[in-house]
Amino acid sequence: MIQGIAAAAGVAIGKAFVLPTWEWDVPDQKLDTVDLTQEFERLYEGIRTSKHEIESMKNEFEEIAGPEESSIFDAHIAILEDPEFMNEIRGLIERQYKAAEVAVQEATDHFVTMFDLLDDEYMKERAADIKDVGNRLLKHLLGAPEVTLPTDTQPYILVAKELPPSQLVHLNPQHVLGIVTMMGGKTSHSAIMARALGIPLVSGLENELESLIQTGEMVVVDGDQGRVYVEPDAQTVESYQRLRTEQQQRKRQLALLTSVEPVTADGVKMRLSANISSIKELDIALNHGAEGVGLFRTEFMYMDRKSLPEEQEQFEIYRMVAEKSKGQPVVIRTLDIGGDKELDYFELPEEENPFLGYRAIRICLDHPEMFRTQLRAILRASAYGKVKIMYPMISSLEELRRANEALKQAKQELDQREIHYDSDIEVGIMIEVPAAVAIADLLAEECDFFSIGSNDLVQYVLAVDRMNEHIAHMYNPYHPAVLRMLRTTVEAARASGIPVSICGEMAGDERSLPFWMHLGVRQLSMSPQSLLRIKQSILHTSSTEAAHQAAHWMKLKTAAEIEQGMSSYNRALHELIAADEQLACSPIS
Amino acid sequence: MIQGIAAAAGVAIGKAFVLPTWEWDVPDQKLDTVDLTQEFERLYEGIRTSKHEIESMKNEFEEIAGPEESSIFDAHIAILEDPEFMNEIRGLIERQYKAAEVAVQEATDHFVTMFDLLDDEYMKERAADIKDVGNRLLKHLLGAPEVTLPTDTQPYILVAKELPPSQLVHLNPQHVLGIVTMMGGKTSHSAIMARALGIPLVSGLENELESLIQTGEMVVVDGDQGRVYVEPDAQTVESYQRLRTEQQQRKRQLALLTSVEPVTADGVKMRLSANISSIKELDIALNHGAEGVGLFRTEFMYMDRKSLPEEQEQFEIYRMVAEKSKGQPVVIRTLDIGGDKELDYFELPEEENPFLGYRAIRICLDHPEMFRTQLRAILRASAYGKVKIMYPMISSLEELRRANEALKQAKQELDQREIHYDSDIEVGIMIEVPAAVAIADLLAEECDFFSIGSNDLVQYVLAVDRMNEHIAHMYNPYHPAVLRMLRTTVEAARASGIPVSICGEMAGDERSLPFWMHLGVRQLSMSPQSLLRIKQSILHTSSTEAAHQAAHWMKLKTAAEIEQGMSSYNRALHELIAADEQLACSPIS
Repeated sequence: MIQGIAAAAGVAIGKAFVLPTWEWDVPDQKLDTVDLTQEFERLYEGIRTSKHEIESMKNEFEEIAGPEESSIFDAHIAILEDPEFMNEIRGLIERQYKAAEVAVQEATDHFVTMFDLLDDEYMKERAADIKDVGNRLLKHLLGAPEVTLPTDTQPYILVAKELPPSQLVHLNPQHVLGIVTMMGGKTSHSAIMARALGIPLVSGLENELESLIQTGEMVVVDGDQGRVYVEPDAQTVESYQRLRTEQQQRKRQLALLTSVEPVTADGVKMRLSANISSIKELDIALNHGAEGVGLFRTEFMYMDRKSLPEEQEQFEIYRMVAEKSKGQPVVIRTLDIGGDKELDYFELPEEENPFLGYRAIRICLDHPEMFRTQLRAILRASAYGKVKIMYPMISSLEELRRANEALKQAKQELDQREIHYDSDIEVGIMIEVPAAVAIADLLAEECDFFSIGSNDLVQYVLAVDRMNEHIAHMYNPYHPAVLRMLRTTVEAARASGIPVSICGEMAGDERSLPFWMHLGVRQLSMSPQSLLRIKQSILHTSSTEAAHQAAHWMKLKTAAEIEQGMSSYNRALHELIAADEQLACSPIS
Repeated sequence: MIQGIAAAAGVAIGKAFVLPTWEWDVPDQKLDTVDLTQEFERLYEGIRTSKHEIESMKNEFEEIAGPEESSIFDAHIAILEDPEFMNEIRGLIERQYKAAEVAVQEATDHFVTMFDLLDDEYMKERAADIKDVGNRLLKHLLGAPEVTLPTDTQPYILVAKELPPSQLVHLNPQHVLGIVTMMGGKTSHSAIMARALGIPLVSGLENELESLIQTGEMVVVDGDQGRVYVEPDAQTVESYQRLRTEQQQRKRQLALLTSVEPVTADGVKMRLSANISSIKELDIALNHGAEGVGLFRTEFMYMDRKSLPEEQEQFEIYRMVAEKSKGQPVVIRTLDIGGDKELDYFELPEEENPFLGYRAIRICLDHPEMFRTQLRAILRASAYGKVKIMYPMISSLEELRRANEALKQAKQELDQREIHYDSDIEVGIMIEVPAAVAIADLLAEECDFFSIGSNDLVQYVLAVDRMNEHIAHMYNPYHPAVLRMLRTTVEAARASGIPVSICGEMAGDERSLPFWMHLGVRQLSMSPQSLLRIKQSILHTSSTEAAHQAAHWMKLKTAAEIEQGMSSYNRALHELIAADEQLACSPIS
C-alpha cells in the first residue's frame, strides 16, 4: 500500500495503464543564418494553434462540467498571452539566436523552476499549468503527435507521472476507472477536474513511477483515504469490492429519493433548490429533484465573449430556465463581477484588495444601462415562470433603494414597449456583507426575501480570504461569530415576515442541518450534486432533537467545540441512515 | 482668483518665488566605441549616490514628521530597485548603445508617460515619483547642481510647476509661508508632506506657470478653499490677513488648553491619549497634553532595517516611552505587519487580498520566537511605568488564548532570568474584525480591555478598502451598521466590567463625540495633532444633550441622515466655541 493525497473521492479497481510522459528531446540548436522572421512566424503559428486547441478543450470540458470548472483553461490561454513569458521566449530567439522550440523549452523550464522554487502550493500548481502550456506549444513546433489514451481496451486505472488538465480533458469516464499520479495535490486544476468528472484520484505519491506500477498490473485506488494498492492480495481486493458495491448502492439509494419530498422525520417541510450557472446545470439539478433555482449566477453568461450580452439574448436564457423549472421559483442574481471574476471586454480597475473592492451591485449601480438591460431581460422572463430578482453585495439601504429605482425604470421601459412581465415580481437581496447583517431589520422592511451567501459572509466576518492558503484554515462557517450573525439575520427576517434561505456552501453541508432546524431556516439552495445527500439527511432528522442540539452548540465559545458536537451528532445520523439502507436492501423487507 | 485643489490647510500671504523646473537637456548621443562596462559603472555609481541621498532625505524628514510620513522615500528607493525600470535602462545602454543619461531619461519618460496615460489618480502620483527619482539619477549622471531654494530672503510663497517630495523635504517652514503648484492633487506624496510640515498648499491649478505668477508678485494662498490670488486688491489682502490672525489666535487658544482636563460642560471626565509610532511623536503628544499613549504602533520599529530588532533594543524604546509618560498608561500593540505593511527581511506571501490575509496576530502566533521576544521586551518595560499589552486583529477566543499562552511563557522566561516586570500587566485586544464584535461578550471575559480600531473595522464591516479610489466614497464610519457594532462592543465590555477605548480615526473626529457620550465611551486615543481640538470640543459639550442627540441619530436608517444630524449639531457647537473665544480675547474679560 502506498499513501498519497486523497484528491477525488471514490474507489476504483482495475488494471493499470501507465501513460508515457509528455516530454520531448529538443536539441539545443542555434540558428546559423539569422532568419528571425521565420522563427517568429513559427512561434506565432504555434501559439495560435495552441490557443485554438485549448479553446476547444475548454468547450469540450464545459459540456461535461459547466463553465466554472472549465475556466481552468482560461488560465492556460492567459499563459500564452503573458508578456513576461512571451518576452523571455522572444528574447532567446532574438538575442541568442535560438530556434523557437529551444527558446520555448528554455523559457518554460525557467518559469517552472522559478515557481517550483517558491515552495508554495499555489505557485507549484501554476508551475504545472505553465509546463502543460509550454509542452503543448513545443508539440506544435516539433510536429509531435498528441499523447492519446487507449479506448479499445477494458476500462483501466490511469497511472501517470503527472496529468495536466489538457490531458485530463480527453478522458472518458467510461474508459478510466480511476487515476494515480505521482505529482499534484488536492487543489490542483487536475484534481478539480477529476472531481467534476467523478473519477477517483490519488495524487502526490512522490515515488519513482517506473519502479512502482507497470502497465497491466492490478491496482486499487482509494480516493477517499488517498491510498493505492499495487497487486493487492485477494482479501484487500475483496474488501474494496465490497466498499465499491456499497458506494454504488448508496448512489442508487440516493437516486430513489429524487421525487421524495424533503420532510424531516417529524414533519418539517424543507425546500431544496439549486445553485446553477447554466442550463446544463439546471438539467442536472432537476434530475436530482431540485425544487427550483435558489441562485442563478448570471455572470457566466457575461464571460467568454467580446461584449455585453443583449437584452434579447439574456431574456431567452432566463426564459428557458423559468420554463424548465415549471412554476418552481427561480431566483436570478444580478451581475456579480469584480472580486475574482473579470470580463475581458469590461475594464475593471487593478485593486489591492478586490474582495473589498469594486464589485457586484457597486459596479451595476455605476453602469445603469448595463444594469437595466439585465433587469429588463429578467422582468420579461418573469412572464414565463415564477422568477425572482436578487441583488448581490448589498451593504446599505441606499444601495437597495437605488437598485429598486433602476428596476422601476426598467419596468417603465417595458411598459412603453408594451411587453408583459410579472408586475409583482419578488425582489430579494444577498446577505453577505457584515453591514447587511447589522442592519438586517432595516433591509427586511424594504425587500421580499433574504438569501444568505455564507461563503463571502464568512470571509468578511472573519477577515479571511479562503483562497489564501496561509490562512485558509481560519475560514470556518461554524465560528460562533458567524453563527450569531446567521441568527441575527434570520430573526430580522422573521420579525418582518419575509423568508430567508441559505445559498452558500453551508447549505450543502449536512452537518449544518441542526442549525437550520434551530434557527427556523426552511429553504436551502446548493450545488445540484449535494441535493440528494442533503435530502436523505433531512428525511432521517428529527427537527426537535436537531434544534435542541444546535441550541446547545450556539452556546459554545469556540468553533472547535461546536464542530466536535456537530461531528458526533452527524456520526449518529449516518449510523441511522446506514441501518435504514441495509433494511431497504435486505431481501425480506 | 484662481481655483485649485485645497491640498494642505491654512492661509499664507507673501511674495512669490517661482522655482525653476528641474529639467535638463540631454543630447541623444550614441556611444561611438562600445564601452558598455564604463557606462554601466556610471549608471551604478549614479544609483548608489541617488539612494544615499534619498536615504538621508528620509532621515531628515523623519525628524520633522515621523516615520509614517517619511516612508514616502521608501517608495523612491523602491523605484531605483525596480527590475522593470532598471531593465529598461540597461537594455537601452546594452542594445541601443545609448549613453547612461540618455537611457535614464528615455526610460523615465517612457514610464512616466505610461503611468500618466492610465488616467488614474493613484498612477499619476506614481508617475510623479518616478519622474522625481529619474531626475535625481540624471542630475548625478550630468553632474548638475541640486536646485536650491533661497534662504537669505524674506519668507516667501513657493510657486512651482510641480514640487516633488525630494524638493519639499528641504523646505524650511520658516522660509516658506505657502506653496502653489500647477500639478498634483490632494493625495500626492507632496501634499501629505506639506500637511505634515503645516505649510498651506494649493495644487492642480492647471495653468501655464509663466503667464500666471512672476517672482516678486504678491500672492495669497488659501489652502482651506483651494484658492490662489495673484496681486490681490487691498480688500482681499485685508480679509485674508484677518482670517490668518483668527487662525493663529485659534491655535494659541488651543495651546492654552494643554494642561486643562478634558471634562464636558456637565462634568463627564474623558481620557485623551495618543496614537504614536515613535519617541518623537510621543514628545509632540505630551506637548499637546496627551494623557498617556492609547496606541503605540510597534511595527515602525521593525521597518527600515535588515533584521528583527532584538529584545534589548525594543525594551529600551518601550522603557523610554513608559518613563516619558510618567505613570500615565502606555498601551503597546504587538507587531501588526501584513496587510499593507511589509518588512524587507521578513518574507510575506504575495496575496490577492492582503487585508483578508496573513497579518498581525496571525503572523505572530506562527512565529513564536519573534512574538515572545517582543512580549519579553514589553514586559521588561512594564517595570518602568504603567505599560499594557494589546493584540491586534483578534478574531476568535482561541487566538486570544494562544497569545496569552505565549505571554505566560515569556513571563516564565523572564522569571528564569530573574528580571522584574509588572506581573499584573493588563492585556487587551483590538476590536477591528467583525467576528470580534459578534463575540465581544466572550472575549471580554478573557481580557482586561478593548480598543476599537475603527479604521479596519469599518473596512471589514462595509467590505470597502478605503485606499481603493473607486469605492472610497462608500467608506463611512457613520454607517448605521458600524454604529450598531460599536454599541454591541461597548455593551459587551460594560457587562464584563472592562473599559473600552476608540483608537481609530473616528476618535479624532469631533463630530463623533455625541456617540461616545451616548454609548458611555470615556477613552479616546488619536493622533497628537487632534488632541487639543477634541479637548476644546469636549469642554463645550453637554454630555446629556449630546447623548440625547446621538440616541436619536442611532435610530436613523442611513448614513446620509445621520451625517446631516451630526453636521448641524457640530455647527452649533462651533458657534458656541467661537463665541467663547471672542469672549476670551476681548480686552474686558
